[in-house]
Amino acid sequence: MSSLFRNLRIHQVFGANTDVGKTILTTALVRASAWKNVPVHYLKPVSTGPIEDADDRHVRFFADADSKEVHANCLFRFDEPVSPHLAARLSNRQADVPSDEAFVNAVAENIRRTAQRISRLSHMYVETAGGVHSPTLSGTTQVDAYRPLFLPTILVADAHLGGISSTISSYESLLLRGYIVDLVLLFKDAYYRNFEYLTPYFSERGVRVLSMEPPHKRLANPDEERAKMDEYYSRLAPDCLQGGMFDALDHLDDCHARRIAELDSVPQRTSDTVWWPFVQHGLMKAPSDINVIDSAFKDFFSIYNGHKAAIPDSADTSLLEPQFDGSASWWTQAIGHAHPALALAAARAAGRYGHVMFPEGTHAPALKLAERLVHEGPGKGWASRAFFSDDGSTGMEVALKMALRAYASRNPTPSVDGLRRKGLGILGLKGSYHGDTIGAMDACEEGVYTCEWHDGKGYWLDPPTVSNKKGRIVVSLPPSMAEDVMEVDVGSLQQAYDVQSRLETPLARLYRSFVARALEKLKKSYIPEIAALVLEPLVMGAGGMIFVDPLFQRILIDVVRASGSHSPSGSAGGWSGLPVIFDEVFVGLYRLGLQTTGPLLGVNPDISVHAKILTGGLLPLAVTLASDSIFRAFNSDSKLDALLHGHSYTAYPVGCEVANETLSIVEKMANGGQWDGARARWNASGGSKETSVWSFWTPDFIDKLAKLDIVDEVMTLGTVLAFKIGANTEGYRSHSAQIALESLRLPHPEQALSSAPGGAPFGVHYRTLGNIAYFMLSLNTPSIVVETVESRILATLHTLRD
Amino acid sequence: MSSLFRNLRIHQVFGANTDVGKTILTTALVRASAWKNVPVHYLKPVSTGPIEDADDRHVRFFADADSKEVHANCLFRFDEPVSPHLAARLSNRQADVPSDEAFVNAVAENIRRTAQRISRLSHMYVETAGGVHSPTLSGTTQVDAYRPLFLPTILVADAHLGGISSTISSYESLLLRGYIVDLVLLFKDAYYRNFEYLTPYFSERGVRVLSMEPPHKRLANPDEERAKMDEYYSRLAPDCLQGGMFDALDHLDDCHARRIAELDSVPQRTSDTVWWPFVQHGLMKAPSDINVIDSAFKDFFSIYNGHKAAIPDSADTSLLEPQFDGSASWWTQAIGHAHPALALAAARAAGRYGHVMFPEGTHAPALKLAERLVHEGPGKGWASRAFFSDDGSTGMEVALKMALRAYASRNPTPSVDGLRRKGLGILGLKGSYHGDTIGAMDACEEGVYTCEWHDGKGYWLDPPTVSNKKGRIVVSLPPSMAEDVMEVDVGSLQQAYDVQSRLETPLARLYRSFVARALEKLKKSYIPEIAALVLEPLVMGAGGMIFVDPLFQRILIDVVRASGSHSPSGSAGGWSGLPVIFDEVFVGLYRLGLQTTGPLLGVNPDISVHAKILTGGLLPLAVTLASDSIFRAFNSDSKLDALLHGHSYTAYPVGCEVANETLSIVEKMANGGQWDGARARWNASGGSKETSVWSFWTPDFIDKLAKLDIVDEVMTLGTVLAFKIGANTEGYRSHSAQIALESLRLPHPEQALSSAPGGAPFGVHYRTLGNIAYFMLSLNTPSIVVETVESRILATLHTLRD
Repeated sequence: MSSLFRNLRIHQVFGANTDVGKTILTTALVRASAWKNVPVHYLKPVSTGPIEDADDRHVRFFADADSKEVHANCLFRFDEPVSPHLAARLSNRQADVPSDEAFVNAVAENIRRTAQRISRLSHMYVETAGGVHSPTLSGTTQVDAYRPLFLPTILVADAHLGGISSTISSYESLLLRGYIVDLVLLFKDAYYRNFEYLTPYFSERGVRVLSMEPPHKRLANPDEERAKMDEYYSRLAPDCLQGGMFDALDHLDDCHARRIAELDSVPQRTSDTVWWPFVQHGLMKAPSDINVIDSAFKDFFSIYNGHKAAIPDSADTSLLEPQFDGSASWWTQAIGHAHPALALAAARAAGRYGHVMFPEGTHAPALKLAERLVHEGPGKGWASRAFFSDDGSTGMEVALKMALRAYASRNPTPSVDGLRRKGLGILGLKGSYHGDTIGAMDACEEGVYTCEWHDGKGYWLDPPTVSNKKGRIVVSLPPSMAEDVMEVDVGSLQQAYDVQSRLETPLARLYRSFVARALEKLKKSYIPEIAALVLEPLVMGAGGMIFVDPLFQRILIDVVRASGSHSPSGSAGGWSGLPVIFDEVFVGLYRLGLQTTGPLLGVNPDISVHAKILTGGLLPLAVTLASDSIFRAFNSDSKLDALLHGHSYTAYPVGCEVANETLSIVEKMANGGQWDGARARWNASGGSKETSVWSFWTPDFIDKLAKLDIVDEVMTLGTVLAFKIGANTEGYRSHSAQIALESLRLPHPEQALSSAPGGAPFGVHYRTLGNIAYFMLSLNTPSIVVETVESRILATLHTLRD
Repeated sequence: MSSLFRNLRIHQVFGANTDVGKTILTTALVRASAWKNVPVHYLKPVSTGPIEDADDRHVRFFADADSKEVHANCLFRFDEPVSPHLAARLSNRQADVPSDEAFVNAVAENIRRTAQRISRLSHMYVETAGGVHSPTLSGTTQVDAYRPLFLPTILVADAHLGGISSTISSYESLLLRGYIVDLVLLFKDAYYRNFEYLTPYFSERGVRVLSMEPPHKRLANPDEERAKMDEYYSRLAPDCLQGGMFDALDHLDDCHARRIAELDSVPQRTSDTVWWPFVQHGLMKAPSDINVIDSAFKDFFSIYNGHKAAIPDSADTSLLEPQFDGSASWWTQAIGHAHPALALAAARAAGRYGHVMFPEGTHAPALKLAERLVHEGPGKGWASRAFFSDDGSTGMEVALKMALRAYASRNPTPSVDGLRRKGLGILGLKGSYHGDTIGAMDACEEGVYTCEWHDGKGYWLDPPTVSNKKGRIVVSLPPSMAEDVMEVDVGSLQQAYDVQSRLETPLARLYRSFVARALEKLKKSYIPEIAALVLEPLVMGAGGMIFVDPLFQRILIDVVRASGSHSPSGSAGGWSGLPVIFDEVFVGLYRLGLQTTGPLLGVNPDISVHAKILTGGLLPLAVTLASDSIFRAFNSDSKLDALLHGHSYTAYPVGCEVANETLSIVEKMANGGQWDGARARWNASGGSKETSVWSFWTPDFIDKLAKLDIVDEVMTLGTVLAFKIGANTEGYRSHSAQIALESLRLPHPEQALSSAPGGAPFGVHYRTLGNIAYFMLSLNTPSIVVETVESRILATLHTLRD
């Protein structure tokens, strides 16, 4: 948990290498604080080597042995003077080795207690061991292990030969984890003069460098050494309380104050300058309602609360609090925020290419991504080509251009030339959403999400839906389809999604005749002339987390394809009836626990669109996959027949490399048995591994939730949980779910949870769609976090019922 | 210049620190090659310290003193055993210190000569000095200084205490520059056991680690030391030619062969899987036409040519060649490819946030970018809000939604409710292009760039244009406007763009009455009902690099605004007549030498759109700026009135941080006098600094180009050069410019240019639009490169004339 206190200025001290003077310079800092009469807390989380050489002892001894305001602590001690991970192993005290989580929790707890104890401005230093990437006790390297704490940093540079390099590299490793480096400290070595090089180098990068006189060579006589060392420290923190380390103190105090002042000003400034998407600014009550995200890590935002309500000017409350990213940041997060592997992937593609022109060109990241999506990913078995664009909406525009052209080129006259081409329409489902560019909007019915130029081009069927109503898994039929029954029991979730086994049920027959009739009617009306079938398979997200009966989507595709006169020719096959587009932007790449929806539905599309999780929740990229017959519709000897759609940053290497890295990590999770536990809980009712549905949420929680009075229905698949708060209005018009859940957002201090970052209680950031509340997990959210969110949801809804 | 030869396998050796055994392990590598009878070349570009300790001497002595197949060289020697930058300074031999360019050229030249000399498979090692970030002679750190060569890398890890950290950090610094790390080599220290940690660590990241027995402690007796060292090397490269360093050789040979095989396969695989934007695949002649970009640096791609035509299997030709990115990668590049500051900016935002949900939230990179664009950037003086989206096309869709709503809310009845809202149109210019999503397309006339759903909504005026025709700067009037004259002489480029001084000319009066008549006519026709004025100021790029007479655009805006009955109310003012949108995606942020076009035109827009250079040519991001009166049109107490447009990755921190870094760098260039030389050449004819126009291309070249028979007209502003090859067809229909320039693309080996990376001759990658050829520079393309491109263009066109 990131910590920030008004009165406790904390810095962690990282070294550019071992033996660069970290402890000596930190001791001098501590001593300077003490001499200024500022209470100062020194923490060495891990110490290796004999106790008589321990850094905390050194600090305590030299900082100001008599002062009651100097506190030095160590959390974990091991005897061997080697890297902590090795010292722990050699010690044969495996039981004393904390997990990474327990480790940061221990540090966070120490910080929290310190903050509670102080009554006036105090300083704190957390001194790490060795270099920035030296392993901690568990073996995780320090920059990663300390990252959940997100403490501002002092980097002690290396004054030796070679030290310019180790210092800059260490700095870059810190930046790759997002750390704020406030100060670079080093010894002023007169021969190698690294300080001369590093001072302007860091100054250009906005980082202050201070260099200090180095200590003498260690003396053999302990008493003489002690006396001389004491003298040395006196020079670094002289009696006049100016110069030397006092410059460092002033600078660090200033950084601390500026950081808080900056954060304090952020809400008002944001409210003055930013125009948010989908937000009615007129309804924002006050700048203090703005979610100020200071950093993020794994499933959590670190939220600034210093600008909220009157917080007493005491030092015991952190100005930063963890908030669970309950919407997976608009459904994009797959492996948690700030994953170092993705930061490195972005960096290495930026360093190798920057961006390079794509048409008629190629580069490894784009080619690898295309191949992996076409051959091993969602395109497996049907796709032949990958087309790159920038986001789900543009990916859908590309898909629509593909489908319309494929249709138009097969049906050239008389209906689709000239003006009639603009009249082509699509067949879809009510509640669809494909993005906010006009083309993507035009593939949806006009309704809530609309604007001046939106001109829905097509026809939308009202679909039957699956849900858990008070413990029963039922398919609800829309009025247009319901003759005598409105709801059909379909047994378990597993049975509902076992599409193959349902193909001959009475419901299947009902769907078949309903779709056939609808197509017949459409054909007769001529306007619009339907040119493509466009579906969000399984779940329509933005339309209100509508879980469409998969059987209905399967039959819709079957009937559309059977209606075609075209019989697939050659081994490449071809589309039949209408080109079928799967918009998998939201549902694909394991958001619902499935790589892709085709195998579950038992049919493949002709075109599919992928985004969101594709880049692991780091940056925008979309890929539209197409079958060979779709691709061939654009092939000719005229440039004008080409697919005339391209963005400047098409297939930019950074996006492609991050996507490749994400897919590697995600596929490893999918195939590594990591989800077997969750799967097993849901798979009781059977189903083959490939198509069986399951959820990251616990069955017991779903059952309890479904049975709450206030909850009308619940659905879950994969990482998604959605439930309807009792009310009839839907979509953006109603705020009932938002009102119901308002209290979730605040952290519950009474509920200390050891597994949250830093052991802190946390709030839950959520989004609602009218009276639908939904929550989304990453693919690696720890189960203890899931369970805590579940209990928070139940507790909140319980309160409302009363 | 990146080098890759079939028969010369080259690796550069970087150290994780100084004193990690780089020279010893490299010597062992060299010795192993020699013992396998493979010719081996060792190069130490910079050596510091006494000659008797020099690494190249050590290598020569121990590798295989008798072999004629061992070659060891050093390029720059300095006596003091300190960092090269310091050794150079202490030497008082400033004249011998090469610039970064001369330095890489010397290394590249040595590599080239070596390649020419060999007749069979050979090895080469380039050993760097100190750690990865140790400064070279000039002071630039090595990872950056060696980057133009882009050599595959061996990282010698640090086996000491703290060495895990320095090794991983060094590796990350290498990745940040895109280097391919083929092997990590280190000593097997039995106490610190870094190899035990690093082997699985790097294995997970796909990098092989080999650890070797460390050498003995140095002996005092030189003869004994030499004998013992020789023994030691014999153990690393044993007589059986297996194990030890031979494993390393096999692995490195394998990496080399796999890299070439991979590159060889890329064109066919790309041709099988990728669907390019704007490319007629049916016209691609063969996979060998595909531009295989292996890496990029500054203004150059590094292009693989191994798959092209029959290249003799000799070792003397590099399989990689530099190619000048003559279209600035679709007009995106501002500071060159793979700029380390942008890679670091991307990394630090990825490490701090990943992506975080934006609506109702905020984070520092987005807020800073919004403020800087609104207050100091193109929004200065008129904008109040920044809205984020993903690319120029989506940014324009947002702009259109803003303008249409602003218009509709001020003109609510009877014309704009219900169906009529869809009939709203825009006023624009023929030749406009605003992106490829349907909304952006609908703001353009239907024509070449079109597709099934494109439905141009508006009216487009045929604009007068400025150009240099055979040395005369003329305004050409379209037929609709020309009564008796078709061309008007406007003196100099400076005079043409001094809009203020032209406001009372006869041409201005002609424009005024032309526009007034056009508006009158439009008002009467009612369909479409014009709701916004949408312009690409100064240059319409994709439409064919059309340089519109700025006076016409100014008067168009003036007349439109004067036609409004609305008088700006309150201090915030408001739009009048029609909301005016400036699409500055292409022209803005110094592409034309101007931060924004408003000051030159003497009017500000109500809405403007920014992308491309915004992110320095690294990744996609767009910002739409709006005035307060536009913003207020969406403010109400109903969520449905909000601007319902938002992408998942809206305002993603990585994009915003890269944009902030780019703007800092670009503004520093703009204000640092870096362009004063180019400016001065063009400013002879006067003009105030803020609005004066100028070009990065040389006036003399422009003059010569304009006077070529084959060239009809030429224009240049800022980094842009465009010229029309004699022909009448325009746009994508014609390929005449492409045919004319085909020969530019191939490197001209006879034309060795010392300033190109690695002193190599280079090809020029270009794009054409029909019979328009255009070229674009970065904002920091060196003038020697510009001049070489200029002479290449002239030479190519000269050939054609004959």
